[in-house]
Amino acid sequence: MPNRDAVRDVLAKVRTESRASLTALEAKQVCDAYGIPVPEEGMATTAALAGDIADEIGYPVVMKIVSPDILHKTDAGGVITGIEGRDDAVAAYDRIVAAARDYDADADILGVQVQQQMQAAQEVIVGGVTDPSFGKLVAFGLGGILVEVLKDVTFRLAPATEGDAGAMLDEIAGAEVLRGVRGGPAVDRAALAGLIANVSQLISDFPEISEMDLNPVFATPDGVCAVDTRILLDFDPAPPRYRPSHDEILGAMTRIMQPDGVAVIGASAGEGKIGNSVMKNLIDGGYQGEIFPIHPRETEVLGRKCYTSVTEVPGNIDIAIFCIPAALVANALGECGEKGIPGAVLIPSGFAEVGEHELQAEIVQVARENNVRLMGPNIYGFYYTHKNLCATFCTPYGEKGKVALSSQSGGVGMAIVGFSRSAKMGVSAIVGLGNKADIDEDDLLTFFEQDPNTEVIAMHVEDLKDGRAFADVAKRVSKSKPVVVLKAGRTSLGARAANSHTGALAGDDRVYDAVLRQSGVIRAQSLNDMLEFARGLQVLPTPKGENVLILTGAGGSGVLLSDACADNDLTLMPMPDDLDAAFREYIPPFGAAGNPVDITGGEPPTTYRATIDLSLNDERIHSLVIGYWHTIITPPMVFAELLGEAVAEARAKGIDKPVVASLVGDVEIEQACDYLMDRDILAYPYTAEKPVAVLGAKYRWARAAGML
Amino acid sequence: MPNRDAVRDVLAKVRTESRASLTALEAKQVCDAYGIPVPEEGMATTAALAGDIADEIGYPVVMKIVSPDILHKTDAGGVITGIEGRDDAVAAYDRIVAAARDYDADADILGVQVQQQMQAAQEVIVGGVTDPSFGKLVAFGLGGILVEVLKDVTFRLAPATEGDAGAMLDEIAGAEVLRGVRGGPAVDRAALAGLIANVSQLISDFPEISEMDLNPVFATPDGVCAVDTRILLDFDPAPPRYRPSHDEILGAMTRIMQPDGVAVIGASAGEGKIGNSVMKNLIDGGYQGEIFPIHPRETEVLGRKCYTSVTEVPGNIDIAIFCIPAALVANALGECGEKGIPGAVLIPSGFAEVGEHELQAEIVQVARENNVRLMGPNIYGFYYTHKNLCATFCTPYGEKGKVALSSQSGGVGMAIVGFSRSAKMGVSAIVGLGNKADIDEDDLLTFFEQDPNTEVIAMHVEDLKDGRAFADVAKRVSKSKPVVVLKAGRTSLGARAANSHTGALAGDDRVYDAVLRQSGVIRAQSLNDMLEFARGLQVLPTPKGENVLILTGAGGSGVLLSDACADNDLTLMPMPDDLDAAFREYIPPFGAAGNPVDITGGEPPTTYRATIDLSLNDERIHSLVIGYWHTIITPPMVFAELLGEAVAEARAKGIDKPVVASLVGDVEIEQACDYLMDRDILAYPYTAEKPVAVLGAKYRWARAAGML
Repeated sequence: MPNRDAVRDVLAKVRTESRASLTALEAKQVCDAYGIPVPEEGMATTAALAGDIADEIGYPVVMKIVSPDILHKTDAGGVITGIEGRDDAVAAYDRIVAAARDYDADADILGVQVQQQMQAAQEVIVGGVTDPSFGKLVAFGLGGILVEVLKDVTFRLAPATEGDAGAMLDEIAGAEVLRGVRGGPAVDRAALAGLIANVSQLISDFPEISEMDLNPVFATPDGVCAVDTRILLDFDPAPPRYRPSHDEILGAMTRIMQPDGVAVIGASAGEGKIGNSVMKNLIDGGYQGEIFPIHPRETEVLGRKCYTSVTEVPGNIDIAIFCIPAALVANALGECGEKGIPGAVLIPSGFAEVGEHELQAEIVQVARENNVRLMGPNIYGFYYTHKNLCATFCTPYGEKGKVALSSQSGGVGMAIVGFSRSAKMGVSAIVGLGNKADIDEDDLLTFFEQDPNTEVIAMHVEDLKDGRAFADVAKRVSKSKPVVVLKAGRTSLGARAANSHTGALAGDDRVYDAVLRQSGVIRAQSLNDMLEFARGLQVLPTPKGENVLILTGAGGSGVLLSDACADNDLTLMPMPDDLDAAFREYIPPFGAAGNPVDITGGEPPTTYRATIDLSLNDERIHSLVIGYWHTIITPPMVFAELLGEAVAEARAKGIDKPVVASLVGDVEIEQACDYLMDRDILAYPYTAEKPVAVLGAKYRWARAAGML
Repeated sequence: MPNRDAVRDVLAKVRTESRASLTALEAKQVCDAYGIPVPEEGMATTAALAGDIADEIGYPVVMKIVSPDILHKTDAGGVITGIEGRDDAVAAYDRIVAAARDYDADADILGVQVQQQMQAAQEVIVGGVTDPSFGKLVAFGLGGILVEVLKDVTFRLAPATEGDAGAMLDEIAGAEVLRGVRGGPAVDRAALAGLIANVSQLISDFPEISEMDLNPVFATPDGVCAVDTRILLDFDPAPPRYRPSHDEILGAMTRIMQPDGVAVIGASAGEGKIGNSVMKNLIDGGYQGEIFPIHPRETEVLGRKCYTSVTEVPGNIDIAIFCIPAALVANALGECGEKGIPGAVLIPSGFAEVGEHELQAEIVQVARENNVRLMGPNIYGFYYTHKNLCATFCTPYGEKGKVALSSQSGGVGMAIVGFSRSAKMGVSAIVGLGNKADIDEDDLLTFFEQDPNTEVIAMHVEDLKDGRAFADVAKRVSKSKPVVVLKAGRTSLGARAANSHTGALAGDDRVYDAVLRQSGVIRAQSLNDMLEFARGLQVLPTPKGENVLILTGAGGSGVLLSDACADNDLTLMPMPDDLDAAFREYIPPFGAAGNPVDITGGEPPTTYRATIDLSLNDERIHSLVIGYWHTIITPPMVFAELLGEAVAEARAKGIDKPVVASLVGDVEIEQACDYLMDRDILAYPYTAEKPVAVLGAKYRWARAAGML
């Protein structure tokens, strides 16, 4: 059990002295309190005392300057290693102090630390980071240039269990090193995982520890030891973001996403006005609930009775869609509160995105006081197709499907609508989040988790206002429904001032990458990937195992599909002898069984059909990747029809395994792909990579969700 | 100057003794002869002699077993380091010999090497590799786990100049280490480059050196030293591939690609036969040269007089297209030779691809004797649009353009035709290479280099039969025309037996990657990328500098486009103050100048037009990336027309800089993209990544070609 009181005492003293970092000896006390092994050591304030301490520890020792003003001790000439006797220790004291004075004449020098010099070992780094979005994280990497130059480092939300910490050891690129390479010994993994977990517990227990750097930690077969420790403090951390309870979120979000009554504040009959577009989209979209136009002077808009305020509406209202200037929003929000409306859809811009942070803070304040949740501001609105609801000024869209999408940016939202229409992709919802003054991704996830109309969730994210809350919810939701995230702004960070190696990684894209992965989220690397994953994941059934088979009519496609499988961490099933023989029954002697199965280009439809049937019916094959090649003998539409039929027959028998197809050939393959897509078989023209990437995304999800 | 005679003597002795590896002392002699620094050392055959040698060298020394049967000395307990005096050296001798006996009782133990122990230094690895396609390569990486675990290694074709070798130092991920990080010293780069160049010269001069491993090489600020050297020999290397001279290639290829007379051997009137499809495609494609059907029994095919053999044709024939079974090919080739036909297009399959290697060797032999170049066998044929030539059994295609494509696989060839037709992509040629029994990529490059109808070349490659010849030609051609390569089979290598770290890398995809990059080739990572690059590169003008500007109507697009620029190594121009002020004249106060320039979503066409004009006319901006957002105020076609007009006006003024556009919005953006594509402005819907990737490919080429 950690000794929290001991740490509390150390930090209280530091706070009293208005310092922002711990001395080496204080850091040792903190480590001792949390079972983080550190070398034997003592603090010398005279050269003679250095000799005494060194004698007691035993040689060799290393000696280091102790000064709150000198963070990079080596740069200051403040470290001497390999001291082998008392005389050397005495001399080293004077040299170190002199060098430190030389480096910074004003530095407050507290003394020289005399420390047991550890035997050669694998050096690793363990750190504590405060990320602006995710809060406390523990970081781990191999020491030296692997972290500093190659950035080979991984993260976990703190506190991390020892199991999590153990998994971190395998996540770095150099993982093999810890297991011992070319005669080197394996390190004590349990001890290392324990140290990481203890660091993560420490920074969780004491939020004022803003950065922590154990660099290096020596890892040997017999244990671990943090040779150098740096701990930085920030006694004035940012306040946590407001978060209602799960039930409050779900209650409000359910009424907001599936409203029975909608008010349009600023409804208008004027062509081209947002309040007019929203009214039209609601009506033309086929919304069956009540629509209440609100306008101070109109009596009727588009044939609907108009009210001067939501407070005058006789019926229930679940959402109010705001189509009024920013300056009028706060007042109308108050009326929404009075009326008991749970959600306001804030289309207006003119808030934080144009620098009006105070105006935004004001509406958040009013909304909270009135118990109204805010979507936006600065959004296009949202769609919920299963209610025929187009609560937006954009074009209406109503193709029903099982994927819910959200976007932080309006441009991306329009791309979602356009792509969906073009690809005939059914959706359950499309939601604009804009400035995310209140409702954000974790609110949406909480709703979509239990929404029977949604089976896949895809989100475009520029920043997570509360990454930790998102990770918590995503980790749970992704167990049952795939969550795809396109994290934009991967490279827009710029430099951030920080005083430790790991501290400098806060806000880094690697942090997003690690946390999203740990949360079971499928990260899309591009807008097009996000859209294709959204389309494809709702179509593909969950595979029952890792065995993927490639079946192709063109050897060249087989090679490209194999490359794509490797790129997407898919496993080509080793071909069992009996199945190999079964395939060989159908393919020419010079065709290749094995995997890929190459039926060769000259084969008639019957060969495609027979080998596809074999693949669908054999339970050892869990997923099927087909590489079709356009020939006169088996033209594109003939292939499409036979594949459609084969899959339909298999499904009728209860066999539903993922089938994806890459079609190469002349333009007729586009029609064949459309035909197959219409039958829920993923088929793409002129590409080997896309079908495999979508299958790979499904596998990534299934593995993270523990289904494989 | 290297002492080649000394090396020749050593290798001759090894050959006489039928050994496949050098002893440590032989390796030292070889290194000495090529100015490769190695430690002082001597060979002890008794314990007492070990003591004598150690005394002479000075302490500390390291001692190592010398045995042709023990390659991994450390594993055998055959290395002791840090020997500080004579007694220790004597004892070490006996321990090493005992350990070696224990490891392999049958090992031939020649003695123990006594070697100067070097001071601590940065460890690097330099190696010599024999790649099955590229031949001799020199490899370089940082020592230890960086090569062995992280595979951070780079290659050059040997011999490499010192300049090349110097560039290698910057190509590895850990390059920064060599310049000194966190207080570590920079290494002597000139000495290291010199050592790499010398190794590359050595393995070039002596092809029988199959693998060479200097591991580690110690690099310090004062020089370099190869501490351990392993040299393996193969006195029976594969014979080089046949290669005609440049002029012979060009002479034949010009007649083949632009024939004035075409014979179709196996021409047929029978619907569905290949000899019928080829005849039809020639005629329907509009080919204006002479067409001579050849058939033993027909007198006329599709209205053309038929001959029984090419030898009976009265006119000149430049290519014979073979539409006959494999078994008949050799005989007909002989007749082609007799007639003086320079090229045979071998559509038939039934050769190496189905295991008939001897039959293929036979036709190659016949062709060489008859001075006929072979395209194929096992191909769809080829297209050369500027002659209206469809020498193929596939569908005809004749859209003229400036890109020439080739594919090793028929499936990929059909994808090229289909994509081209669908995207309305003009081509100069599409060529199937199939088994590449003779004509391969470097023959095509030699022709396309001087073909005025071709400005971009894109190739699908599964293996390069002669990678070195390809690299030579590609390096030259890519200086004037972009060469795109999709290398398939990146991951199909499997394990390869090798006895050294660097030797194990032969045939690795990293070798292809390094050599293609050095040859100025743009490597496409997917089929779709290859096709998009082919389409885009012929449209984009060469940029005059690195400054890229993003201009967007949606902040969200700007973020995605910035990510894409970073992914593609594009440089966002730092915005000069005067230009910033000029943009601010047009955009709302809350819009963002800087880069990206965000004109915001509510702006009318005039704002788009004014800011686009500003971007086109300012010479400091070298390339323009536009992120359009679909709004009612500036609908897609209005945007497309204004952009088309702006670019046309700029072009009329002689301003021709790359412009690419990402359009996000509802389906109308597809029409807008088509409109822009028709006007040679690259525009893509629903994606931020694709336009930037194509621009990135153009930059990669321009940099490699020395134009930037």
